[in-house]
Amino acid sequence: MRLAGELLAGDRRALGKAITLVESARADHRTEAVELLQAVLPHTGHGVRLGISGAPGVGKSTFIDAFGNHVIDDGNRLAVLAVDPSSSRSGGSILGDKTRMEELARRPEAFIRPSPAGRTLGGVARRTREAMLLCEAAGFDVVIVETVGVGQSETAVADMVDLFCLLAAPGGGDDLQGIKRGVMELAELVVVTKADGDLLPAANRAAADLRHALHLMRPVHDAWAAQVLSTSSVEGTGLGEVWAAVREHRDTLDAAGALGPMRSEQLRRWLWTELREGLVERFVASAGEQLADAELDVVAGRVLPTVAADHLLKPR
Amino acid sequence: MRLAGELLAGDRRALGKAITLVESARADHRTEAVELLQAVLPHTGHGVRLGISGAPGVGKSTFIDAFGNHVIDDGNRLAVLAVDPSSSRSGGSILGDKTRMEELARRPEAFIRPSPAGRTLGGVARRTREAMLLCEAAGFDVVIVETVGVGQSETAVADMVDLFCLLAAPGGGDDLQGIKRGVMELAELVVVTKADGDLLPAANRAAADLRHALHLMRPVHDAWAAQVLSTSSVEGTGLGEVWAAVREHRDTLDAAGALGPMRSEQLRRWLWTELREGLVERFVASAGEQLADAELDVVAGRVLPTVAADHLLKPR
Repeated sequence: MRLAGELLAGDRRALGKAITLVESARADHRTEAVELLQAVLPHTGHGVRLGISGAPGVGKSTFIDAFGNHVIDDGNRLAVLAVDPSSSRSGGSILGDKTRMEELARRPEAFIRPSPAGRTLGGVARRTREAMLLCEAAGFDVVIVETVGVGQSETAVADMVDLFCLLAAPGGGDDLQGIKRGVMELAELVVVTKADGDLLPAANRAAADLRHALHLMRPVHDAWAAQVLSTSSVEGTGLGEVWAAVREHRDTLDAAGALGPMRSEQLRRWLWTELREGLVERFVASAGEQLADAELDVVAGRVLPTVAADHLLKPR
Repeated sequence: MRLAGELLAGDRRALGKAITLVESARADHRTEAVELLQAVLPHTGHGVRLGISGAPGVGKSTFIDAFGNHVIDDGNRLAVLAVDPSSSRSGGSILGDKTRMEELARRPEAFIRPSPAGRTLGGVARRTREAMLLCEAAGFDVVIVETVGVGQSETAVADMVDLFCLLAAPGGGDDLQGIKRGVMELAELVVVTKADGDLLPAANRAAADLRHALHLMRPVHDAWAAQVLSTSSVEGTGLGEVWAAVREHRDTLDAAGALGPMRSEQLRRWLWTELREGLVERFVASAGEQLADAELDVVAGRVLPTVAADHLLKPR
């Protein structure tokens, strides 16, 4: 398969075509995509998979731009993907927007791709996971998957990466509403951005608070205590420390023999996500209006959920 | 239906029989159980539903014993249920064990029931949710659902109650391992136990740390900022404050019109949990060995999850 060969040789245009192929919903494209993915699968898995999330206003694009350049300067090829279920084919996603990561977009060692569109988070996540495998097969040794945090997208991203990094603003300003519940527990690395100038005292306090909070929780991996670091994209400080922490995390997992089992478990969960989504899709299609009526009855407290479910699942 | 009548009259023995009925896996019992539940459904929903979780050693039984007595002294009838997926028919669960809540077990206004057994967490949770409805129909105006935190049991409990309360020990001692990830975010109330004698300074520090941590996260309901309180079951202090906080939380949700929508959403999610479990069960039964083989291929990195799922879901 020619595309596979070009991809494995590191051809960026081939990578772009390949990702477009896996994003397509057409049945014939899907057949080709699957053939391509299976062909390159043995060439994946060697790199670092890093998830980055942060609320709007925290400075995510600025951070990835500066951090990404640092990673490339350190001798790596970097791909940046995104999970944004709110993106649509017409509107496009602001994530992975090259104009927001101008310096990075100029580097030939960088490959930046906007979030795939998709009806469901599951569909978007699948396409991103497959794109990630293609990036690795094309020789990109670091893949960043970013998300802005719509719905359960952080959980989806955490489930496809080795290390989930949360960006936090120094407090006050945009971030008064606090960190979304369920996200802090995913983070093995927290980076406080904008730690410069007038915001420096607030940034230090935020870092201290976050360290305290993370310390109260059990770690994701026993061998790695979550770290909190500060950076200033404007001054260029802290980026080296973040990259060092990412590498140290990888070394720690390798030494503990934890990377393989974690990724295997992620694959298993991916399988079950696909199975459940497929089963539910089939069911919804065949249940039709019955389902909507049942949901109304249940939500109104008229019919017990177990009764409604039993009735809907009865073979007809 | 006679059992329904006795239950609605508040007969404790009828309640026990009714719960045994909903716990049974026998088809004929299930038919009766469903009839009973539908009959009493209109008489449910008026009370307070409180989830209580805490790691072993935190003093959960001691707390519930003392707190429960206080709730009853305040003029309520209290039911205590439990979710413990590790309980088995022969072994029984230590949760809801009357010998661990001796004083409470003696009160006629208290009804204590061990966790139902069940093959899956979903099965245990369903039985507990149905038992809770029966307790409410029997006039118990406060229902506590406790869990010791095996697997995802806290999430299951949080999804069936109005307020999830986490018990935490003063630190040091048993609780060095930290709060299980994913649990802190569920808590709208955290109670530090054993705040007496030598542990008092540690208890105060733990309370301060927890307040800090909770403050960093977005609240579950905008109208309610998570509270951290301290109690000593031994000295009997703090229990009144906890009960006052529970009542205040209920008043806050009522005033914000948030209780109804929250419970409706819980019912909707319960419906979908039942549907997904039913669909997966049916699928697993029909897929047989194919599924196990596919899982092995996926986990070993030989076959892409999407490929495996597509193949398994193909109609035969």
